[in-house]
Amino acid sequence: MSRHSAAPFNKTLSRWMTGGGPCEDVVVSTRVRLARNLAQYPFPPSARREDALAVRGAVQRSLDDLPDGGDYEFYPLDRVEEIDRWVLVEKHLASPQLVGRADCTAIILDAEESISVMVNEEDHLRIQCLVPGFDLESAWSLADTVDDSLGAGLEYAFDEDFGYLTACPSNVGTGFRGSVMAHLPGLVHTGQIEPLMSGLNKAGALVRGVFGEGSKAEGNLFQVSNRISLGSSEDEMAANLAGVARELMSRERSAREALLNGNRYELEDRVYRAYGLLTNARKMSSEEALDLLSMLRLGSDINILPGGLGDAFPELLVRIRRASLQRVVGERLDTNQRDIRRATLVRNRLLNDG
Amino acid sequence: MSRHSAAPFNKTLSRWMTGGGPCEDVVVSTRVRLARNLAQYPFPPSARREDALAVRGAVQRSLDDLPDGGDYEFYPLDRVEEIDRWVLVEKHLASPQLVGRADCTAIILDAEESISVMVNEEDHLRIQCLVPGFDLESAWSLADTVDDSLGAGLEYAFDEDFGYLTACPSNVGTGFRGSVMAHLPGLVHTGQIEPLMSGLNKAGALVRGVFGEGSKAEGNLFQVSNRISLGSSEDEMAANLAGVARELMSRERSAREALLNGNRYELEDRVYRAYGLLTNARKMSSEEALDLLSMLRLGSDINILPGGLGDAFPELLVRIRRASLQRVVGERLDTNQRDIRRATLVRNRLLNDG
Repeated sequence: MSRHSAAPFNKTLSRWMTGGGPCEDVVVSTRVRLARNLAQYPFPPSARREDALAVRGAVQRSLDDLPDGGDYEFYPLDRVEEIDRWVLVEKHLASPQLVGRADCTAIILDAEESISVMVNEEDHLRIQCLVPGFDLESAWSLADTVDDSLGAGLEYAFDEDFGYLTACPSNVGTGFRGSVMAHLPGLVHTGQIEPLMSGLNKAGALVRGVFGEGSKAEGNLFQVSNRISLGSSEDEMAANLAGVARELMSRERSAREALLNGNRYELEDRVYRAYGLLTNARKMSSEEALDLLSMLRLGSDINILPGGLGDAFPELLVRIRRASLQRVVGERLDTNQRDIRRATLVRNRLLNDG
Repeated sequence: MSRHSAAPFNKTLSRWMTGGGPCEDVVVSTRVRLARNLAQYPFPPSARREDALAVRGAVQRSLDDLPDGGDYEFYPLDRVEEIDRWVLVEKHLASPQLVGRADCTAIILDAEESISVMVNEEDHLRIQCLVPGFDLESAWSLADTVDDSLGAGLEYAFDEDFGYLTACPSNVGTGFRGSVMAHLPGLVHTGQIEPLMSGLNKAGALVRGVFGEGSKAEGNLFQVSNRISLGSSEDEMAANLAGVARELMSRERSAREALLNGNRYELEDRVYRAYGLLTNARKMSSEEALDLLSMLRLGSDINILPGGLGDAFPELLVRIRRASLQRVVGERLDTNQRDIRRATLVRNRLLNDG
């Protein structure tokens, strides 16, 4: 790992935003996160700023000491422009909490932004690996490597009985959480999502809308994760989550079949209208864009539209958002200006100009 | 004129549907109609079927006697297929009343369907001339010629004091009515249409929606005509109507300017969305098609879109309607099938395939 002070983020796309992972017809991305804390410091929720800065310094120094010269970068968030901090949130690399305490937090990123380590979020370290498609194995293996690297130079808070200690009891043990971001338009449009969500939630998985709650989730995007991290190994938790994800994929694909067989013209009409609006509108809200992009992606996945038209989906989920739009323009934009920029961006992207 | 028995109507487009007339940015078409009755027969509303058939025969024979060999055709409506009768209504060549009494009515058409003479509608003869754009002069001159031709072989009911006698007192005198079909999206979208309509109606003009009432008129299309036919010459009535039409055109153009200057992005967005939906939807109701086509035409008239895109407007006003759609397919279609055919027709027409 190399230590590096903050610089503008010039890369537009994180690896997960470029797509191409397994089962990407349903699963947009897979994330594995490990929560770790340093033994000698109070947990962030109860830490004074001096403690937090000491942790940040220790983490940064530990990177200097690493023998391998990976291309990780260490960014103290108070040296990152505010707009760029929110771009990190929109890319799913940082949390709003991390960004909200920029005076003592930091983020470590690799070149392709598959790895993001949040420093002084709820725990001292939140090691996150985010990969395209349904690929728990890759994400977990990557997280494990990063965990080993960091653990070599830092003393983790660890208890023989409980395992890794964390700020919130729900993370104690492995500190592991796996999650997948699933695109479930079939289950939403066939009215199956609500009962399915409550069933899964009872069975120990956590399902929630990525943008908005319940069946109103914009873009029909849902985050599915394991609820508890204690009492079983990371492998068991990953296997559990994989089972839930496979079940969801199977049901989603069946729902899409049912939609196609039920009223093909109705579905084609909705898909093509979405395409017509996305490639022609001059103003578009984020909500509308997400719903139309979801329909476009569905149409592409079920071969109503040429497959390539859906490829921009993960990328546009991020690029149409507030900070990312403003980042490109380089200035603050009001709602109306954002709606205009958003429509232009989507149109150009889908018509292959940018 | 040549007499001809009924045959299928093979022509798709009447002259007015092809556009190109004066002031076509606002006025789609101009019509002049003359009401005439034969002296020896009761007016159609009080006529027995035998009387009506006698009138139809007399009119048909009078065409045989004409010296000039124009390419008029005489169609007894009971020898025209029902679907074709309704296509005549949709082309604005015949009225529903005429078509509803096919057992004793007829229509005379010229090759380009600028002239249509209804036989045994409310009056024995309704001579109508329909031309593209705002062109009262051409329509009136054409109607006058047809009137002279027919009058040469038929004895019209005429009173020295009252003028031409008609079934309804409102048509007595000249039997003249001029009307223009105006496309007024600017006045509708700026909320000016309702007060303007009531003002014009008080001033002796008759303004009504072509498809639906008031500001809800689908496609923002309005028929403006002179209300009374007695007490002034045809020229005076035409001049009055022309004055009203010119005032409307001026106000409509100002309203479009105001829309453009007010919020150009908003307007562009609506125009391009209309284009996106019209060229992509797989199902479309008649109401939606009319409203989107109106927006497309507006966009084309004010140079937001390339001018040619609006050219199909008059033609599509007819071709998207129920009978015209079924006529092309050659079979009865339910609402859903019509919505699918309509979307296909509009899409292909705008994308220049047909």
